[in-house]
Amino acid sequence: MRAVDLIAAKRSGLRHTAREVTWLVTEFTAGRIPDYQMAAWLMAVCSQGLDDPELGALTTAMVASGEFVDLSAVGPWVADKHSTGGVGDKVSLVLGPVVAACGLPFAKMSGRGLGHTGTDLDVAEFERTVGSAGMAIIGQTPSLVPADKQLYALRDATATVEQEALIAASIMSKKIAGGSTCIVLDVKVGEGAFTPDLEAGERLARLMLELGRTHNRSVRCVLSRMDEPLGLAVGNALEVREAMKLLAGDGPPDVREVAFTLAGHLLQMSGLVSTLEAGRVAAAGALDSGEAQAACRRWIAAQGGDPTVVDGRGLPDAPIVTPVVSVGAGVVQTIRARGIAQACLLLGAGRATKTDVIDPAVGVTLTVRRGDSVSPGDILAHVHARTTDTAAVAVTRVGDAIVLGEEPVRAEALILAELDEGGSRL
Amino acid sequence: MRAVDLIAAKRSGLRHTAREVTWLVTEFTAGRIPDYQMAAWLMAVCSQGLDDPELGALTTAMVASGEFVDLSAVGPWVADKHSTGGVGDKVSLVLGPVVAACGLPFAKMSGRGLGHTGTDLDVAEFERTVGSAGMAIIGQTPSLVPADKQLYALRDATATVEQEALIAASIMSKKIAGGSTCIVLDVKVGEGAFTPDLEAGERLARLMLELGRTHNRSVRCVLSRMDEPLGLAVGNALEVREAMKLLAGDGPPDVREVAFTLAGHLLQMSGLVSTLEAGRVAAAGALDSGEAQAACRRWIAAQGGDPTVVDGRGLPDAPIVTPVVSVGAGVVQTIRARGIAQACLLLGAGRATKTDVIDPAVGVTLTVRRGDSVSPGDILAHVHARTTDTAAVAVTRVGDAIVLGEEPVRAEALILAELDEGGSRL
Repeated sequence: MRAVDLIAAKRSGLRHTAREVTWLVTEFTAGRIPDYQMAAWLMAVCSQGLDDPELGALTTAMVASGEFVDLSAVGPWVADKHSTGGVGDKVSLVLGPVVAACGLPFAKMSGRGLGHTGTDLDVAEFERTVGSAGMAIIGQTPSLVPADKQLYALRDATATVEQEALIAASIMSKKIAGGSTCIVLDVKVGEGAFTPDLEAGERLARLMLELGRTHNRSVRCVLSRMDEPLGLAVGNALEVREAMKLLAGDGPPDVREVAFTLAGHLLQMSGLVSTLEAGRVAAAGALDSGEAQAACRRWIAAQGGDPTVVDGRGLPDAPIVTPVVSVGAGVVQTIRARGIAQACLLLGAGRATKTDVIDPAVGVTLTVRRGDSVSPGDILAHVHARTTDTAAVAVTRVGDAIVLGEEPVRAEALILAELDEGGSRL
Repeated sequence: MRAVDLIAAKRSGLRHTAREVTWLVTEFTAGRIPDYQMAAWLMAVCSQGLDDPELGALTTAMVASGEFVDLSAVGPWVADKHSTGGVGDKVSLVLGPVVAACGLPFAKMSGRGLGHTGTDLDVAEFERTVGSAGMAIIGQTPSLVPADKQLYALRDATATVEQEALIAASIMSKKIAGGSTCIVLDVKVGEGAFTPDLEAGERLARLMLELGRTHNRSVRCVLSRMDEPLGLAVGNALEVREAMKLLAGDGPPDVREVAFTLAGHLLQMSGLVSTLEAGRVAAAGALDSGEAQAACRRWIAAQGGDPTVVDGRGLPDAPIVTPVVSVGAGVVQTIRARGIAQACLLLGAGRATKTDVIDPAVGVTLTVRRGDSVSPGDILAHVHARTTDTAAVAVTRVGDAIVLGEEPVRAEALILAELDEGGSRL
């Protein structure tokens, strides 16, 4: 088999056999197919796509490139969750403790750093912690799905990230290697997301559901709106603080709604409750009773983190906090997620390039939401910055992202669709 | 400017500015854009194409990546010729001496080795030889259009060779850097060519004519049929021998026809004759009078080659010559150029990979042509081999490529179309 022939086949719209896809991934991961050939193949995939058997083989081969997490000792049902990426999305930090408190172990591999929660576990520690504390979150380790790490770095450099099948393979290979048996996927839809509309979101969701079926995992998808940031805080420590506040019974209703919806699915999938509504009620009960907060404390302690984080302590503060003041009057029409994300990137809260170090203290906190009326001089948000220079630029960006108008705004559904294991709408 | 943004733009079908294309080529050639990014860009070009301004900028930037040949001291008109690649195409070895004998200097950079004709000149020697001997052929040198060398190697490994704009840029950048002022392009059309049908051939031709116009060169295109090998000999020394025979007045009529057609254009473009027909007549006269043979002798001597090659001496012979014997009876319906080329590749007459060394002695000589009647036991061809093993395999391949049938065959035009500088059919 030669890589150049497989590239030529894909370029001309032919389908690969499972053996061919497996060979490509195996040889690439072993360093026997050079980056330039894989880059050409990835771009050919962007124009010609992958069908279900190809995508299945790609995902299987990616999983096989590294270690697997074995959670079978924990029990038949262990939960995992993934979001396709939203601004201000701190749902996992609420969802994990909530379902753990309900008796469903939660085991997640996270793509992002979670600051002071101690996510530097190895696979064996991860497996033990899920069993002992009922919950564990691990950062990306080189031993799980190394093929995804290599492929993602190449896709990032070659403008081949945004292809649905490649996104589905990247997400699902990590979920499958992650060892959990019931998985809920939060597919973000909107201006602040990969998938701009419901149609694209549903296509991506259905690819991932199919991969779940062929890999013997129970998977459901929730499609949720991502035009505005989720909650009021964006930035590492700011988001952790907001999530902890929510576990203490006080937090933004949109984060609660997403968390309870996802929890409802996981609890129903695992058989702990029989209906989605019963799952939501159980989740709300675990939160309001403080049991979720207690589960969170156990989790952080078990991972060797600082459990006082749960009380909002021990989190870094940015040295400069500057208000974003409204110059006009009107009703907040929207708060553009992308604009807030760009402001946070400028502040150092995200990575523009692979080597950038994330500043956990910086970010943006909103003081208004969509639909609020504001007057000149009102504070719209705060910028949490490391330097006065970045603060000044971020203040302008945040101000631009908060769009005022004359019209009253209508409430919009946050949860757009829910798909069960077979792809049916619930 | 960032390569990843340009890849993303091309992937989504946007057009580059000339500055962007120039930057890509310059940075890639300087080693500042890695192969994997250029590979992704090339594949994106395969699906989205390049428009005329992009292709013009690409070609200009490729030319600018290296040295130029300066033939202005030779005179206002110096001829060059290129074929897009046919099996058994030895036309340049006839055409060059013919137009040189007619008083039009001929200066060609050749992509293939020409055995014992001494094509290892540097640029300065090449310029001098065109002036002194009226003709020079140089092998590819690293100093002319190095961008093409780098791009071609990458395209070859990433299945991105067969894209019309990239082919046009590759050919025309070398023609423009080559310093000649009138250029005739032989675009091969058929099963044995890059472009399978006249429509595709004409599209490629028009791209190259446009590049000629924007780079101030007189360019014409001849589209000629390439379903069967040109002439009877395929393989390095075998083709040189056939060309020399033709210069001595004895050679296959198809090679003569192509050579005289191309010569007619060059002689008319340079103003040496006023009509195409007068050009063809002049070319035939130069050949039949022996002046072309004399010009060839001067050329080979001037380049330090062995002039007795003109008399068919000093060329290497393969140790094994095996006949291909017909088992059936019938009329030769076709001689598949691709099949003959594959047999030659097996014999070692071409390169399967970059590092393969070409064996100049091996190849195939045909003893029948399309339309000939054959009986069982007739010799169809000879295989010229280095080993008995390769001879045996090649005999089978050649036998398979010569297709017999019951039907009489009709004569087919060899010259399919001729396009002038403006793209009009002549």
